[in-house]
Amino acid sequence: MKFLFLYLFLCFAYTSSFSQNDEKLIRSIYDEALTNRTAYENLRYLTKNFKGRIACAPEAIKAAFWAKEKMDEMDLDTVFMQEMMVVNWIRGDIEEGTIISEKYGQRDVEVCALGLAVGTGSIGLKAKIIEISSRQELEQLGRKNIEGKIVFFNEALDNKLINTFGAYGKAAWQRTEGPSLAAGYGAKAAVIRSLTASIDKHPHTGVTRYAEGIDSIPAIAICTEHAELLSKWLKNDPDLEFYFKTMCLNLPETKSYNAIGEIRGSKYPDEYIVIGGHLDAWDNSEGAHDDGGGCMQSIEILRIFKTLGIKPERSIRAVMFMDEEISQRGGAKYADEVRRKGEKHIVAMEADRGCATPVGFTVDASAGLLEKIQKHRNLLSPYGINFIARGGGGVDIGPLKQFNTVLIGLVTDNHRYFDWHHSPNDSFEQINIREFQMGSAAMASLTFLLDKYLHN
Amino acid sequence: MKFLFLYLFLCFAYTSSFSQNDEKLIRSIYDEALTNRTAYENLRYLTKNFKGRIACAPEAIKAAFWAKEKMDEMDLDTVFMQEMMVVNWIRGDIEEGTIISEKYGQRDVEVCALGLAVGTGSIGLKAKIIEISSRQELEQLGRKNIEGKIVFFNEALDNKLINTFGAYGKAAWQRTEGPSLAAGYGAKAAVIRSLTASIDKHPHTGVTRYAEGIDSIPAIAICTEHAELLSKWLKNDPDLEFYFKTMCLNLPETKSYNAIGEIRGSKYPDEYIVIGGHLDAWDNSEGAHDDGGGCMQSIEILRIFKTLGIKPERSIRAVMFMDEEISQRGGAKYADEVRRKGEKHIVAMEADRGCATPVGFTVDASAGLLEKIQKHRNLLSPYGINFIARGGGGVDIGPLKQFNTVLIGLVTDNHRYFDWHHSPNDSFEQINIREFQMGSAAMASLTFLLDKYLHN
Repeated sequence: MKFLFLYLFLCFAYTSSFSQNDEKLIRSIYDEALTNRTAYENLRYLTKNFKGRIACAPEAIKAAFWAKEKMDEMDLDTVFMQEMMVVNWIRGDIEEGTIISEKYGQRDVEVCALGLAVGTGSIGLKAKIIEISSRQELEQLGRKNIEGKIVFFNEALDNKLINTFGAYGKAAWQRTEGPSLAAGYGAKAAVIRSLTASIDKHPHTGVTRYAEGIDSIPAIAICTEHAELLSKWLKNDPDLEFYFKTMCLNLPETKSYNAIGEIRGSKYPDEYIVIGGHLDAWDNSEGAHDDGGGCMQSIEILRIFKTLGIKPERSIRAVMFMDEEISQRGGAKYADEVRRKGEKHIVAMEADRGCATPVGFTVDASAGLLEKIQKHRNLLSPYGINFIARGGGGVDIGPLKQFNTVLIGLVTDNHRYFDWHHSPNDSFEQINIREFQMGSAAMASLTFLLDKYLHN
Repeated sequence: MKFLFLYLFLCFAYTSSFSQNDEKLIRSIYDEALTNRTAYENLRYLTKNFKGRIACAPEAIKAAFWAKEKMDEMDLDTVFMQEMMVVNWIRGDIEEGTIISEKYGQRDVEVCALGLAVGTGSIGLKAKIIEISSRQELEQLGRKNIEGKIVFFNEALDNKLINTFGAYGKAAWQRTEGPSLAAGYGAKAAVIRSLTASIDKHPHTGVTRYAEGIDSIPAIAICTEHAELLSKWLKNDPDLEFYFKTMCLNLPETKSYNAIGEIRGSKYPDEYIVIGGHLDAWDNSEGAHDDGGGCMQSIEILRIFKTLGIKPERSIRAVMFMDEEISQRGGAKYADEVRRKGEKHIVAMEADRGCATPVGFTVDASAGLLEKIQKHRNLLSPYGINFIARGGGGVDIGPLKQFNTVLIGLVTDNHRYFDWHHSPNDSFEQINIREFQMGSAAMASLTFLLDKYLHN
C-alpha cells in the first residue's frame, strides 16, 4: 500500500512538472519539422552554392554572409557576425597518385592531400613505399627501414566496434600524427588509408599536424579500394615505387566569420541557450552531413520557435561556427566574446555527428544537472530518443566548458557516417529529409524543455 | 535492506539464467557478422544477376535455384525446394504517360503499371482526369463526375507520422483498392500517386486488386514529382487530358519455388526455428531492401552458426519465400507442408522491413512468451536493440500462426524505407554493409537465445 502511494505521488510529481501541455507542444514541434522543407532547401542551397567552403576560402565567407542573410529574413531579434583570423591552407589544383610496379605495371590511384600538409611541388615525389598497420610496427621499423621512403599507413578501421566514432578515433592517429611520426624517422612522405570502413574510391581528407621541430613532409590519403590494392601488390612486389603530386600551400592567415542569430529571452534575456554547427567543411566535399546540416538544423530551431509562437524565457542563439575542421578558431572566438561581454551561457548544444536518424543526446554536465536533463527522456522517447547519457558536447562548443555551460551533443545513427566524412561522398544527396528534420525537432524539443525547466 | 537482498537476488537470477557465456557468444556473433562480407557479396550477386524477379518470372526461379546452390555449398544438413503455382502477371515492355494540356503543353511523366492491373493495349488510353485526395472525396464525386474519366488518387503520405509504415498503411488503400473503387464508378483508368514521402522521379509499383464483379481497368503509379505537377496543372486547367499506355497481361498460373536450408537440431531435431525473407521482388527494382536483403541475412544466420560452431538444440531453417508481393503463395505452401509433415514450429522470424539499422523486434505471441522473450533485451541493447514489443511478424510467416508458432519481425530504422520501396531506387547501392550485418547479427543472436531458453 505504501508503494502504491509512493507510485501515485511519483506519477503526480512527474505529470505536474512535465505537463501534458509539454507533450502537445513537442508533438507540434515534430509536426512542424516533418511537414516543412525550409531547412532542407536551405541545406540544398548551401551545399550546392558554397562547395569547398574550408574556413579560409571565399566560399566559406560567402556562406557565412549568406547564412546571416537567411537569418536576417527571419525577423529575429539580433543577427550578427564575429570576425576572426584563420589558417590559410590551399589544396591546389593537382592531386595525382600512381603505383609503379615492374611486376604489375603502372596504376593511377585516387588520392587527396591532407589538410595543413605541404605539397610536393610540380615535379612530384617518387620513392619506395613501406606499409605499416600499427604504431608499434612503425616504431619497430625505425629510421633504418624508413628513411628516404614513403610510409603507407594502412591500419583499417576496426569493424567490430559498434560505434563507428570509436573505430574512427582508434585509427585516426595515422592521419593526425602519422606524417609527423614518419617525418621523425626521415620518411620522404606519407600515404594514409582513408579513415572509413567503406571500401570505395573516395579519398577522405582531414587535418594532419606536425610536431614542433619536425620538418613537414607531403602527406595524402588514398581511397580504401586502392589502399587494399597497394597492400596486395606490395606483398608480392616490395620494391614497387609510389609517385604522387600535390600542390598544396600554407599561406598567411586570413579573415573569416561566425554567423549568429538570436531570439531574445522574454524573462531572462541575459541567459543564453546556444545551438550550433560548423559552417566550414572540407574542400573536397559539399559538407552536407559534416556539417552544413547541423548549421541548417540550428537555424531551423529558431524558425520552429518563431512559427509556433514559442517565446523562450532565455535567449536562444543559432551559431554557425567557422573553422572547426582545421584550427577551431570560430569556437575560440565565440567563447572569447562570451567572456568579454560576461554573457551567461546555460546550455550549448552541437549537431556535428551527421544528419542521420537521431537516437540520443550526450551531456557534459554535473551529475545533478545530467539527472535533471535525463528526466526529459520520457517525452522524447516516442520520437526515437533512446538515451540521454554522459558524453561529449562538440568541438565548437568545447571552449564554453570554462563557463560551466552544460554541453550537449546530438547523437545520430552512425553506421554510414564515415562513408561520407571528409570525402566527395558527403553530398546533399546523402541527406534524407525525414532523418534530418527528426534531428531538428529533437533539438528544438530539448531546447524548449531546458529553457523551461533546467534552472526554474 | 530488504530491497538490497531483492536486488541481489534478481541480479543472481538474471546472471544465472542468461550467463556471461551468452554475452560472450553474442559478442562473437557480432564480431563475425561485422567482419565478414559473404552475405553482402551474396546480396550483390542476387540483385545484379536476378533483377526483375517477380515470382512468375524466370529470374525469380533462377534466383531460387541459385539460393539453393549457395546453401548446398555451405555443408548444411538439408537443402530443398518447395514447388507451388503462382499468378502470372507480365508488365510488358512499354510504359508511357503524358499530360496533355492546352494551357501548359504536353509533358511526359514517369509512370509504371500496378501489379495485376490490365494493360491499355497498344493504342493507349486518353481521357479527362479528376483528382481526389481522400476516400470520402471519391464517394462524394460519385458516378456522375467519374464515369468515363481517369481517377487521379493524390493523397500524400502523412509526414507527421513518426513510423513511415503507418503513413504507408494509411495511404495504401489508393493503390490496393483505388482502381477497383474507381472502376465501380465507371472510371476508365486510375493513376495513383506513388506511395512514398520522397519527392522524386521514381514511380513505385505494387499490387492492386479488383473486387468481385468489377471489371478491371488499367492502373498506373505516377512518380511524386509528376503527381505534384499534374495536381498543379489540374488546378488551372481542369480540362487537361491524360494519356498512358501499358502492355501488361495476366496469363495462366505458372510454377515457382521456395528454397530452404536447414541445420539439424542436436537435441530436438523435430522442433523448428525458421528465419526468412522473400526472394521475389517487384520487377522494376533490384529488390535489395525488399527483400533480397532479408533472404541473404537468413542464410547468413546459418553461416554464422556454422562458422562459430554453434550447435542449436532445435533445427534452424533459412527460408527464401516466393511470391510475397502478389499472392503470398510461398508462405501458404510452406505452412501447408508444415501441416502435412506435422512439423513443430516454435518460432518464425521474418526480415522484411528493409536492411537499415535494426532497432527492435516485434513479437506476435502469448503474453507469457512475449515476456520471456523480452528478458533478452538486456543482452541485445548494447547493439542498439531498443525494444522487443508486441507486434506483427511478417507476411510470409503469417500462415504459421495457426500452429501457435511465435512470430517475430525484425524492426529497422524506417525513415528511408519508402524512398526505396517497389521502385528502381531499391538497388544494391542503397544497402550499407554495417547496417545490413547488424541485422544479421541481431537475428542470429535472438535465434541463439530462443533456441536455448524459450522452451527449456
